[in-house]
Amino acid sequence: MARGGSERRAAEVTAEFDLIERIRMRAGARSDVILGIGDDAALLQVPAGKQLVVAMDTLNEGVHFPPETMAADIGWKSLAVNLSDLSAMGAQPAWCTLSLSLPQADRAWLDEFLDGFLALAASHGVALVGGDTTRGPLSVCVTAHGFVDEGRALRRDGARPGDDVWVSGTLGDAAAALAQWRDGEPVVSALKTRLDRPTPRTALGLALHGIANACIDVSDGLLADLGHVCRSSGVGAEISVMELPASDALLGAFDEGTRFIFQATGGDDYELCFAAPEHCRDAIEAIGEQERIRVTRIGRIIAGQGVRALRRDGSPWAPPSAGYTHFVS
Amino acid sequence: MARGGSERRAAEVTAEFDLIERIRMRAGARSDVILGIGDDAALLQVPAGKQLVVAMDTLNEGVHFPPETMAADIGWKSLAVNLSDLSAMGAQPAWCTLSLSLPQADRAWLDEFLDGFLALAASHGVALVGGDTTRGPLSVCVTAHGFVDEGRALRRDGARPGDDVWVSGTLGDAAAALAQWRDGEPVVSALKTRLDRPTPRTALGLALHGIANACIDVSDGLLADLGHVCRSSGVGAEISVMELPASDALLGAFDEGTRFIFQATGGDDYELCFAAPEHCRDAIEAIGEQERIRVTRIGRIIAGQGVRALRRDGSPWAPPSAGYTHFVS
Repeated sequence: MARGGSERRAAEVTAEFDLIERIRMRAGARSDVILGIGDDAALLQVPAGKQLVVAMDTLNEGVHFPPETMAADIGWKSLAVNLSDLSAMGAQPAWCTLSLSLPQADRAWLDEFLDGFLALAASHGVALVGGDTTRGPLSVCVTAHGFVDEGRALRRDGARPGDDVWVSGTLGDAAAALAQWRDGEPVVSALKTRLDRPTPRTALGLALHGIANACIDVSDGLLADLGHVCRSSGVGAEISVMELPASDALLGAFDEGTRFIFQATGGDDYELCFAAPEHCRDAIEAIGEQERIRVTRIGRIIAGQGVRALRRDGSPWAPPSAGYTHFVS
Repeated sequence: MARGGSERRAAEVTAEFDLIERIRMRAGARSDVILGIGDDAALLQVPAGKQLVVAMDTLNEGVHFPPETMAADIGWKSLAVNLSDLSAMGAQPAWCTLSLSLPQADRAWLDEFLDGFLALAASHGVALVGGDTTRGPLSVCVTAHGFVDEGRALRRDGARPGDDVWVSGTLGDAAAALAQWRDGEPVVSALKTRLDRPTPRTALGLALHGIANACIDVSDGLLADLGHVCRSSGVGAEISVMELPASDALLGAFDEGTRFIFQATGGDDYELCFAAPEHCRDAIEAIGEQERIRVTRIGRIIAGQGVRALRRDGSPWAPPSAGYTHFVS
């Protein structure tokens, strides 16, 4: 781990090493981790015949989560968004590294953060193998590593005209929770859980090998993310806003017009959106039953470009925005 | 790439994707990158017979570099500190991912940042394969990936009593530059370059396979980092402060007492400190000549624990501090 810089201090209290030691003691183990936390870098064994899949995402306080978010939820989500990226590639997760910037060395906060982070890691068999802790505004950067069989990764660029478009789980819950929080309303518990503790669709991604022609995770909003698939694949798509799956919590809390906006354009759902040939419908339904996850056919891939959202009568549905951008010029 | 959060905006100007596209166009290529920037995750091929080496480090504005640091220098250094970690493992660097938090989408700043980052990447044959850009206080997180032959990595835990202790290059230059900057004095150009543009010792690390019993990069300060080696190896060390290599710039700018402090305890040098058996002295000198890098024998590994710094007459030299910590309780 490298350090240095503009506020060097003479101090015998090596608080940073204390934090790293607290992390190391709980980091988990795997037989393919030759050397984990505690050297200059981690030393790892990728299985023969596998390709390495690497995702990296940062969550910043005030941008990706409100300042009052519980440390354990920040921990969970910072890993979840990365495991979600791996799931969209159909990868089996294996290792992660964590770079944690904290305003001060707060052991209690760190322990709670690790509670959430490592609970998700353990449930996916993921070992924390390295990273650093440093001083700075609260920011959590995670790199996640996984494997796929050679040539079998799910990608964005394989969708073909005629493919069905599917989505897992339900859409719009996280955006709805955020809207309630922003409006100063009580946040419905089931919605808040979806915002704070998204579920990476790892098993579904693995099961879609040989079935899905293209896949992406819904992080920016369905229309935006399906748009990425279409651009990469050189195709267009039509989806029916009526078909977008909604949770009971969402149905109970919002009218249809508002709900459609959350479902079609809200980010942070971390469901999988994928394109698959028509002849795979039964197989996909069977996977959904086996993995106990809702899978919904919401439209189809067409020749052309762009994503069109349609109402029941076939008229276009126009969202007030299409996706999320961190930077607005 | 995953996004979401507390400041969602309706905006057609997808400035984030513009930044990502600017990065993607310049990211470099390697035949073992199956899929680089542009999907949910990177897809990479680790060569058969190799182990994967992964390092991750973050630089935060105001902590690791002063706010007035040039964007190109920040880019260079953010990758350099990670490649330095790989060099300390004796690894051949291959890929990196970059997570960049910026206060606003500043194309000119990004282009200059990439000038520095990618110049170093290209000189080491490293491809930038993924990551994200997001809004937040300026923070640069990099994960670097490299390879070593199975079982051949340089580690911290192999030093043995009787080993010589060596260090590459010169020590204290970066700390001296920082001190001048902090005191509001003109910073000697050669020292400033060492602070802003450290040189990862990749070729040296590779050449030390089969020679060094243990290795670390000097990021926290020589005494602190050699202390890490000693703790991991269950040994002690004695070094001579008189033997610590100094640059002409450092010799010309500071008296001996001040210089010793920078050399023994200053961080940010990113030289390699390694332990090797006595019979390897000629081989190490030859490697230094071949790689055109100064290598200096500064002490030896002893039974026991802790690092003792000695003056010429054998009396103990006591630094006012031993290493750097980000967090002071």
